[in-house]
Amino acid sequence: MRKKFIVLAVLILCVTVSGFAEDEYTLENALDMVWLFLGASLVFIMQAGFAMVETGLTRAKNATNIVMKNLMDFCFGAIVYWAIGWGFMYGTVGLDAAGDAIPGKFIGLSDFFKNIMDDPVYYRDWFFQVVFAATAATIVSGAMAERTRFKSYLIYTCFISAVIYPIQGHWIWGGGWLSELGFHDFAGSTVVHSVGGWAALMGALVLGGRLGKYAKGSNGVVSVRAIPGHNIPLAMLGVFLLWFGWYGFNGASTLSGSSPDIARVCVTTTLAASAGAISSLVFSWIWFKKPDASMTMNGALAGLVAITAPCGVVSPGAAIIIGLVGGVLVVLSVEFIDKVLKIDDPVGACSVHLTCGIWGTLAVGIFGDLSILDNGLTRSGQIGAQALGVVSVGAWAAVTSLILFLLIKATVGLRVDPKEELVGLDITEHKSEAYAGFQIFSNT
Amino acid sequence: MRKKFIVLAVLILCVTVSGFAEDEYTLENALDMVWLFLGASLVFIMQAGFAMVETGLTRAKNATNIVMKNLMDFCFGAIVYWAIGWGFMYGTVGLDAAGDAIPGKFIGLSDFFKNIMDDPVYYRDWFFQVVFAATAATIVSGAMAERTRFKSYLIYTCFISAVIYPIQGHWIWGGGWLSELGFHDFAGSTVVHSVGGWAALMGALVLGGRLGKYAKGSNGVVSVRAIPGHNIPLAMLGVFLLWFGWYGFNGASTLSGSSPDIARVCVTTTLAASAGAISSLVFSWIWFKKPDASMTMNGALAGLVAITAPCGVVSPGAAIIIGLVGGVLVVLSVEFIDKVLKIDDPVGACSVHLTCGIWGTLAVGIFGDLSILDNGLTRSGQIGAQALGVVSVGAWAAVTSLILFLLIKATVGLRVDPKEELVGLDITEHKSEAYAGFQIFSNT
Amino acid sequence: MRKKFIVLAVLILCVTVSGFAEDEYTLENALDMVWLFLGASLVFIMQAGFAMVETGLTRAKNATNIVMKNLMDFCFGAIVYWAIGWGFMYGTVGLDAAGDAIPGKFIGLSDFFKNIMDDPVYYRDWFFQVVFAATAATIVSGAMAERTRFKSYLIYTCFISAVIYPIQGHWIWGGGWLSELGFHDFAGSTVVHSVGGWAALMGALVLGGRLGKYAKGSNGVVSVRAIPGHNIPLAMLGVFLLWFGWYGFNGASTLSGSSPDIARVCVTTTLAASAGAISSLVFSWIWFKKPDASMTMNGALAGLVAITAPCGVVSPGAAIIIGLVGGVLVVLSVEFIDKVLKIDDPVGACSVHLTCGIWGTLAVGIFGDLSILDNGLTRSGQIGAQALGVVSVGAWAAVTSLILFLLIKATVGLRVDPKEELVGLDITEHKSEAYAGFQIFSNT
Repeated sequence: MRKKFIVLAVLILCVTVSGFAEDEYTLENALDMVWLFLGASLVFIMQAGFAMVETGLTRAKNATNIVMKNLMDFCFGAIVYWAIGWGFMYGTVGLDAAGDAIPGKFIGLSDFFKNIMDDPVYYRDWFFQVVFAATAATIVSGAMAERTRFKSYLIYTCFISAVIYPIQGHWIWGGGWLSELGFHDFAGSTVVHSVGGWAALMGALVLGGRLGKYAKGSNGVVSVRAIPGHNIPLAMLGVFLLWFGWYGFNGASTLSGSSPDIARVCVTTTLAASAGAISSLVFSWIWFKKPDASMTMNGALAGLVAITAPCGVVSPGAAIIIGLVGGVLVVLSVEFIDKVLKIDDPVGACSVHLTCGIWGTLAVGIFGDLSILDNGLTRSGQIGAQALGVVSVGAWAAVTSLILFLLIKATVGLRVDPKEELVGLDITEHKSEAYAGFQIFSNT
Repeated sequence: MRKKFIVLAVLILCVTVSGFAEDEYTLENALDMVWLFLGASLVFIMQAGFAMVETGLTRAKNATNIVMKNLMDFCFGAIVYWAIGWGFMYGTVGLDAAGDAIPGKFIGLSDFFKNIMDDPVYYRDWFFQVVFAATAATIVSGAMAERTRFKSYLIYTCFISAVIYPIQGHWIWGGGWLSELGFHDFAGSTVVHSVGGWAALMGALVLGGRLGKYAKGSNGVVSVRAIPGHNIPLAMLGVFLLWFGWYGFNGASTLSGSSPDIARVCVTTTLAASAGAISSLVFSWIWFKKPDASMTMNGALAGLVAITAPCGVVSPGAAIIIGLVGGVLVVLSVEFIDKVLKIDDPVGACSVHLTCGIWGTLAVGIFGDLSILDNGLTRSGQIGAQALGVVSVGAWAAVTSLILFLLIKATVGLRVDPKEELVGLDITEHKSEAYAGFQIFSNT
Repeated sequence: MRKKFIVLAVLILCVTVSGFAEDEYTLENALDMVWLFLGASLVFIMQAGFAMVETGLTRAKNATNIVMKNLMDFCFGAIVYWAIGWGFMYGTVGLDAAGDAIPGKFIGLSDFFKNIMDDPVYYRDWFFQVVFAATAATIVSGAMAERTRFKSYLIYTCFISAVIYPIQGHWIWGGGWLSELGFHDFAGSTVVHSVGGWAALMGALVLGGRLGKYAKGSNGVVSVRAIPGHNIPLAMLGVFLLWFGWYGFNGASTLSGSSPDIARVCVTTTLAASAGAISSLVFSWIWFKKPDASMTMNGALAGLVAITAPCGVVSPGAAIIIGLVGGVLVVLSVEFIDKVLKIDDPVGACSVHLTCGIWGTLAVGIFGDLSILDNGLTRSGQIGAQALGVVSVGAWAAVTSLILFLLIKATVGLRVDPKEELVGLDITEHKSEAYAGFQIFSNT
């Protein structure tokens, strides 16, 4: 049965890559179109999920600012990904002797500002890809919440969507060097989540903590203050929306509506997310003596991020293990980044997307069915390929985003003034309140 | 035309039941896969709908607790439904002489902890079923809101998803005795909603009313206090999300993307929900002299619950009648349970899911097109079969959940202390506020 | 290739119009069914989007009232669109010599209260159309927010869904006179949005401004007060839900799951919405010296409304231009209607749906690919056809809704008393608070 599927998949790919054959738009093409369209729409609603999670887990005085960042990183991201990003990610670098396009090893260099009228395959694939690019970009807004200059965030977001994300994406999904080595990342634990996570970590590092977050006492010891979010139900709504959208994220990453792998993906995604929430809940309950809401929510997201790479190649049991480990890792990571590294990530974005993105990528090597991966690698070879991907993409994303944030800091400035931060970014950056009419305590 | 459809449906079913034939994954299989995947995703977002409705209709001091219950009943439910519930619901009890699996009359007993790598049909069907199981479980959280110990709720939710829901589900959707008698429940007015409703009623009964809800005056008369919800827009968002998800709930219960019945389902679902909201609005407007928001929202849900069983076998006009009756019933039921039975159901879950679940199940017998039902029963026979299903499933769900809640009460305890209840479960159970920074009046 | 598609499309249309041929429900029919069902479900969730945007951009004291209007305009709308509206929009006016149905030039006059049991094509198409009708109706609630009597709004909403919307819809989508002239409105910039926008403008005009909105100073100059919305995150959630639903609105307006045009629609929709948000942001930032949240949100919606008519016939570059212009237009229009016309539209509904609906309709003529439009018109001819559609539909919608609102005003009354308005409609109309327990400042 599998052989037939592969033949089918190869046929689909041929049609996909070369455009529909003249005079032919089969029902199979049509099903793929519908599948990818609806899958991409589901991924789009993850933008709302991110917006609600990040708003809910931060303070009321910055709520307008956060949702504005979440809207605008998609909007700017979509335009620059059309103009520039797509070309870097899926462009080619010339023609071979036979006249076929050659994909670059490290970068694509064609199809910028692609303004053609009639190319359903390009249109379809661009739509499916742009929502992934936007996901990587929007991860960062949470980690940089409550203290970043709005203008500077917009500059950052154009760069990640135009340059940082697409180039490493080319290595893995655009036919570049990592894909040639057998690196497997089904839906983007590395391509999307770890890249967003690295940029988030660098952004939070360059910014420094929010006012009052880390206070040096007279004895020289730095105390860490928890700053609670202002709307837990909204954050939970965001978690549900993210989970909902993730079915498109992982499911439609089969890229074909005719793939029976859709079925496995839906089961592994559901089980890993559930297991992640459970282990975060139990672990934080034991550790902190309370079933913590924000840890548990991040646990569900941790399971989702972790299963994103391996969702197509692992069994239900393995998915549960991947989720359980992810849920524990996210709690440890939140504490480590906050208490040890003293990097202020208000919503835990680095722990969810970076830590668990790495874990999920490695889990492909540990738990992946080699006969499904079917790339000639042994188990240790697969683990090595995954680790290489983690390290190389990590180096690329961390270095480029660090440079970017330092450059922004040195020029237009990255952070608002302390006075503005105290008042809140809604008033100082946007001249409006998020909750006009409500009595809200001034909270440092 | 109908005959052809039936032949098609039978063919689909054969393929579905026996797994895809070797070497064959047709485009029809692919469309079914896409259809059930997207349908199940829509049903998943109903979890967000329940969370928002229940949060919005209760008090701010318990908002974190409620959304945590809504998240975790899905997460625990998914794991136990994979481990145990599926086997009880869709397992078999042995092989017949020809070597074919025999479905049990009362229970399935195979396929526990099903950890196979390559079974698209199982994967697909499990995903579609788990979101229904989770719906039954989450109905209960609203009725038990604002006073239930978090730990105890988690214990309950594992049992309903592992045992209570799957066993009666086997009777109806797993090939058991009720299905053999011609009982028809298209998408679960009985299987899902009435079962959740019975458990909700038993839970609320065992718990007792919230503090201050029923006060005995010096004259011995018990006065009933209305405790208003804290966020009506959020509750309305929940209603819209539930309605949205219900299109997957009812629509995809055709189980086949090639079924033309999808069309009838979408019309009857839309009209019944609309009619339910209208009759609740008008009826409560006349009775209480105001167009009440929570009654009207429950009216829309009442219409949806009521049409869930008959949506595939009734005409648009009948759907409107079913919705209108459901909308009136839910108002009467809310008043009856609150004022006469004096059982405290903060969000009206029992009235929506139990009362209207029963009504919808009976409506199949009253309004169902016998030629579509096509099971050899006369109208009175069909009504009898429906009544038998209502009674037997009701007895099972009520008795098992009553025992379960009494056992929990006798062991770990079901209800929080009065002091904790006064302060609110967010602080006492989760050590956090849902709305940090907002001025909220202490409300008993 | 195109020729083949057209043949395909015509075949689909034939099947669609005449019902499925006896003994035949092909996989292509099945894909169309699934596509339109899911598309319509996406459009449905736009109701939640409207509700959240309108609630978020108005005051807390009217939040219950607004969400109730948003729920009930769908519910009443669905019932009357089934009973009456469908017949006016898609009914026929008799049979020709060959026994085929004749579509009327100006109105349909059959299929009222269509209560048949077995017509998948009717069911499917009704479901897809009813969510569009409900969108037109619900646009109006925002413009008339915070001062309209609830009962009167319900009367209005029945009329627009039964009469005003369907009759002009017949002209364009029901085979009437405008469609014969080559007027092109892919998904409803005119049919849906401008009609809702005209009704919104007339409603706001007849109502007058909210108390305190326009104050005449002692010098005779009228000062305009900005009344801020009470929940920006909720409004932003609404924007995301609207955008999400718009993929169904525009995408599924191909009416066929086998249309490769789906691909172009998803790209143009995404780019125009993004461009609209960007230009509103930048334009309002320059003009008002702040990156205004409500302007930016309306900019995204402006781009969506503007691309609704041309999304199937323009290039990505043209879509960006259409969005950019829409984003500027919406800001200018908001200022013009508020400051110059002094018509009080609390959420900017007229500017988003009417102004940009007109712009999008004209953009078909300006940017549309004539070979795709393929109706024999020259560019100037197409522009003329579009302008004629704008004017004639505008005249119809404006005049009928003006008469309707004046009639309501003269009979049951359109506006609440000033005292009620001061207290807020939640208390006076619905006898409940939206946010019980929260401290909310009285805000005039």
